[in-house]
Amino acid sequence: MGANINHHYQEVKESYLFAEIAKRIRTWQENNPEIKDKLIRMGIGDVTLPLPKTVVDALASASMEMGKSESFHGYGPEQGYDFLREKILNYYKNFSVDLELEEIFISDGAKSDLGNILDLFAPGSVALVPDPVYPVYVDTNIMLGNKVIFAHSGEENGFLPMPPKGEKVDLIYLCSPNNPTGAVYDHEGLKAWVNYAKENDAVIFFDAAYECFVEGNLPHSIYEIPGAKECAIEFCSFSKKAGFTGTRCGYTVVPKALIRGGQSLQKMWLRRQTTKFNGVSYIVQRGAEAVFTEAGEKEIQGNISYYKENAKIIMETLDALSIYYTGGKNSPYIWLKCPKGMSSWEFFDFLLEKGQVVGTPGAGFGDAGEGFFRLTAFSTKEKTKEAMERIKKLLEV
Amino acid sequence: MGANINHHYQEVKESYLFAEIAKRIRTWQENNPEIKDKLIRMGIGDVTLPLPKTVVDALASASMEMGKSESFHGYGPEQGYDFLREKILNYYKNFSVDLELEEIFISDGAKSDLGNILDLFAPGSVALVPDPVYPVYVDTNIMLGNKVIFAHSGEENGFLPMPPKGEKVDLIYLCSPNNPTGAVYDHEGLKAWVNYAKENDAVIFFDAAYECFVEGNLPHSIYEIPGAKECAIEFCSFSKKAGFTGTRCGYTVVPKALIRGGQSLQKMWLRRQTTKFNGVSYIVQRGAEAVFTEAGEKEIQGNISYYKENAKIIMETLDALSIYYTGGKNSPYIWLKCPKGMSSWEFFDFLLEKGQVVGTPGAGFGDAGEGFFRLTAFSTKEKTKEAMERIKKLLEV
Repeated sequence: MGANINHHYQEVKESYLFAEIAKRIRTWQENNPEIKDKLIRMGIGDVTLPLPKTVVDALASASMEMGKSESFHGYGPEQGYDFLREKILNYYKNFSVDLELEEIFISDGAKSDLGNILDLFAPGSVALVPDPVYPVYVDTNIMLGNKVIFAHSGEENGFLPMPPKGEKVDLIYLCSPNNPTGAVYDHEGLKAWVNYAKENDAVIFFDAAYECFVEGNLPHSIYEIPGAKECAIEFCSFSKKAGFTGTRCGYTVVPKALIRGGQSLQKMWLRRQTTKFNGVSYIVQRGAEAVFTEAGEKEIQGNISYYKENAKIIMETLDALSIYYTGGKNSPYIWLKCPKGMSSWEFFDFLLEKGQVVGTPGAGFGDAGEGFFRLTAFSTKEKTKEAMERIKKLLEV
Repeated sequence: MGANINHHYQEVKESYLFAEIAKRIRTWQENNPEIKDKLIRMGIGDVTLPLPKTVVDALASASMEMGKSESFHGYGPEQGYDFLREKILNYYKNFSVDLELEEIFISDGAKSDLGNILDLFAPGSVALVPDPVYPVYVDTNIMLGNKVIFAHSGEENGFLPMPPKGEKVDLIYLCSPNNPTGAVYDHEGLKAWVNYAKENDAVIFFDAAYECFVEGNLPHSIYEIPGAKECAIEFCSFSKKAGFTGTRCGYTVVPKALIRGGQSLQKMWLRRQTTKFNGVSYIVQRGAEAVFTEAGEKEIQGNISYYKENAKIIMETLDALSIYYTGGKNSPYIWLKCPKGMSSWEFFDFLLEKGQVVGTPGAGFGDAGEGFFRLTAFSTKEKTKEAMERIKKLLEV
């Protein structure tokens, strides 16, 4: 009798990845006090450059507005202010994607919406998740008692898994550019997924959090694929684009053409958000709006270029060492094959002890990550250079 | 085959309350263009005074911090920064409630957490909800396929329902001071609920969003009742306390002593938040912190006093007219019995047409709200006075 808990929470595996990394660094530092300051962190998954001035000015100015009767803002629309939704709508036109304002929902970040979107689906759904992968796709499904199937990726498919043959799934997670592998689907690759989703009446959750790093003719949005509006929800964020990891703003696109069980998912999501959410801070939305001004765009491109330069330094080092990797070009992540047949954790210890460089063991992102390693472009240029020189010395034949 | 939607969304009733109010006002304005500017809105559920200067300064200053490398903040703790949690912990000491830091979770508002908390419980739970009530308690349960039972309130219990006899429930919603009735439980009342919850192994969701309006010896927190930590989760917000309805910040207390099915709900909620949430904006948390400074508290008390003055003007008018009401004293809401046996909507039309005053029909908050009407203290003093003078004239014998 009494309140019954959701027992699926006990089925979620505790992730010890970052705790284990911290522990090994601590132990190493204790044993090597004389060189402990030489440590360079190349596993950072967070941005490090400050917010662009244009954004800061907009945030400060919106803060001041809130202090005056005539410009104070109380409850805003749960789905976000039109001033920001319009900017996002226009941004999508860069990729020849036409959206309606009502299809764009402002969120406090992709992570919240990627978890909460499952509210719209029946418990017990079957979710197809790439391996290796951002852990919350798996955990949010386990918490609901959903079944998780993995789409294996590796060198054979360039860490870009393709639809399984003969297997039926309900929900499909795609992340492109991928976290942690940095691999990016081309239009053909996404088309295969859209076709598979439509054949199976499945829904794709497309995590586009790193789209701002995409170059050339590769897709930024799944809606660049014809028919995707009938089968895909897209999640995006200002976190990596504009350094909003601590400022918190993102957006989710639920197309009106997306119908399942005779119901509009756009209407269901609106209902969900108006019932369980009260919108993003007015101040933060004004900050996000500034991202799309001419000055804001310029500053943001400057920051992205800075990270891309770092990625280039890493790629050049790996190229010189003939080490296999994905990412780097269209992503802040570089996913490399551990040299000399080392396991992910063996390479972690090797780099820490011999080079005082810290990265992230690929095995922490799923079974298919074993033997791989993630470096990120979020450190400073100086530290990135120094770390790569050390790695080069360590691994040069 | 394919993605199955959560069909419970179709069972949620569309609320036409505020749409219907807007429609009737529009029609009246079209038919009465010469007096349409005389309209006074006394149904506002949102704050109207701007943010206190201390808060604005903190928001602007934190915005500036984000623009500098040395003070930039990326991902913060999902459960909130300790600088804010510590302030809340100290605030609870005013009511002789001792909390631990880990029991306090910073949220983007009470609404989000009141909805998301159901993630922790098994679907099909039985929820006991007061009638009349804030509609999202009901809707969030219907969306999950939970069973909702109502605890009827009315003049006979001063709109403070007491535990049902012989009935078993899993989840209990209490809101004190109540929205929409403004009624406040005393310690004895809450004690009866705590005892009932413990006897039934149920969990109380205590919505304390209006606690800042409480005066005298009445409880601000359910944890003022011995044993409540073993059966209650408390939700609170800066929305009404400090005018944060558009700035978005709140907090949820999940005591470590709250165990169900052998599991710590505090640990489950931490797991939920770290998986499905990325914390509240650093800037907003700095703004919320300023609420607890000496200057901030003084300004906030000034604002609350302003609203309380308005409530007093409304109460004096109703007293003079011998109209039954609850609230007003410890709440920005005044819940009155419609005069002359009018229904909620009859009184709405009567006030609009004869007095050009708009309020909220009680029937919109549940069956038990029929024949009642909600006025709020969130208008200006001048308009509140004017509205009350008109009502007095209309209803005086």
